[in-house]
Amino acid sequence: MAVKTEYIELNTKGKTDIVNITDMVKDLLIKTKLKSGIVTVSVIGSTGGLTTIEYEPALVDDIKNFFEKIIPSNISYNHDETWGDANGHSHLRASLLGPSITVPFKETNLILGTWQQIIFLDFDNRPRSRKIVLQFIGE
Amino acid sequence: MAVKTEYIELNTKGKTDIVNITDMVKDLLIKTKLKSGIVTVSVIGSTGGLTTIEYEPALVDDIKNFFEKIIPSNISYNHDETWGDANGHSHLRASLLGPSITVPFKETNLILGTWQQIIFLDFDNRPRSRKIVLQFIGE
Amino acid sequence: MAVKTEYIELNTKGKTDIVNITDMVKDLLIKTKLKSGIVTVSVIGSTGGLTTIEYEPALVDDIKNFFEKIIPSNISYNHDETWGDANGHSHLRASLLGPSITVPFKETNLILGTWQQIIFLDFDNRPRSRKIVLQFIGE
Repeated sequence: MAVKTEYIELNTKGKTDIVNITDMVKDLLIKTKLKSGIVTVSVIGSTGGLTTIEYEPALVDDIKNFFEKIIPSNISYNHDETWGDANGHSHLRASLLGPSITVPFKETNLILGTWQQIIFLDFDNRPRSRKIVLQFIGE
Repeated sequence: MAVKTEYIELNTKGKTDIVNITDMVKDLLIKTKLKSGIVTVSVIGSTGGLTTIEYEPALVDDIKNFFEKIIPSNISYNHDETWGDANGHSHLRASLLGPSITVPFKETNLILGTWQQIIFLDFDNRPRSRKIVLQFIGE
Repeated sequence: MAVKTEYIELNTKGKTDIVNITDMVKDLLIKTKLKSGIVTVSVIGSTGGLTTIEYEPALVDDIKNFFEKIIPSNISYNHDETWGDANGHSHLRASLLGPSITVPFKETNLILGTWQQIIFLDFDNRPRSRKIVLQFIGE
């Protein structure tokens, strides 16, 4: 059993930019030489989130529309006054979705469905440079 | 320390069918002979999700009603046009809730409240045969 | 590699009381003497949840307002009739957010952003004594 720490660095457009990071996670899993275990994929920062989805353009639009409906970007939040950066909606979306996901792997393969990809969602209201940590635990 | 992989196979009715899998997880934990650690319970596929709930019929109805209210099944999503299978709402519900849950265990018991059960929610719009992976890590 | 189990005990006010538990998690991490790994922080009970947020008062109000909007406390739920304790909304909020969060650590530091804190949300409709389990796995 071992712990292996890896990182993904990304430049995003913000505004609920959705990035399919599945292949990056797979490549880093191979690099660890671990066969079986779990990986916790976690964003460093409070305006991004992770989940899985069938990554195809129409569904990516649907999830952007869903977050806009449930936590609109064009209304005011108390947080908007704290720093004047108007991204209260970004924080709420991120806290709701959650900052991390834990995915099992076996025989050096992520255990996911064929149409199930790991996505990072950048909810901030401007382009960001992001660092995502991958903590692998396994054997 | 060891990693042990187990699976639960289920036939569901779809349409936000909610299955209490707590006893199945407990039985598989005993099978692993691990005493202390964590188990990541993760659905293979992009239209199911996991969480915990007090599993009783009225609350199960409430959570179905909640998902119907927040992500209705009777409106159109862009994804509905991609494959023609009209399950855009299923994908959105699954991505929102998340595909996995990680539960601690100690002395071969899941650490949960008395009225806290692990549930699998099948959001697809038709009956499905499901495979859920349980990745146990512990000693 | 080792598993270390710790607990946080809290008295909350309920009604979506939001507690920043980051420093408690950090202190318990130091106590474990583990350097690198993950910690699963999980509430025992079905009316609490965990996530991360930039913990500042205005945003704490925003997230309370968000849950009140999406799952109102002043309407009836089927579950309210089950035990007569009128906390159907508390259960729904908890199941939606999820009962646990898994956070990586390295060099005995939680890997979080500067403005990213771990919060416990008590959604119940009355003050509660809470027990949160921390399952550390690492080396």
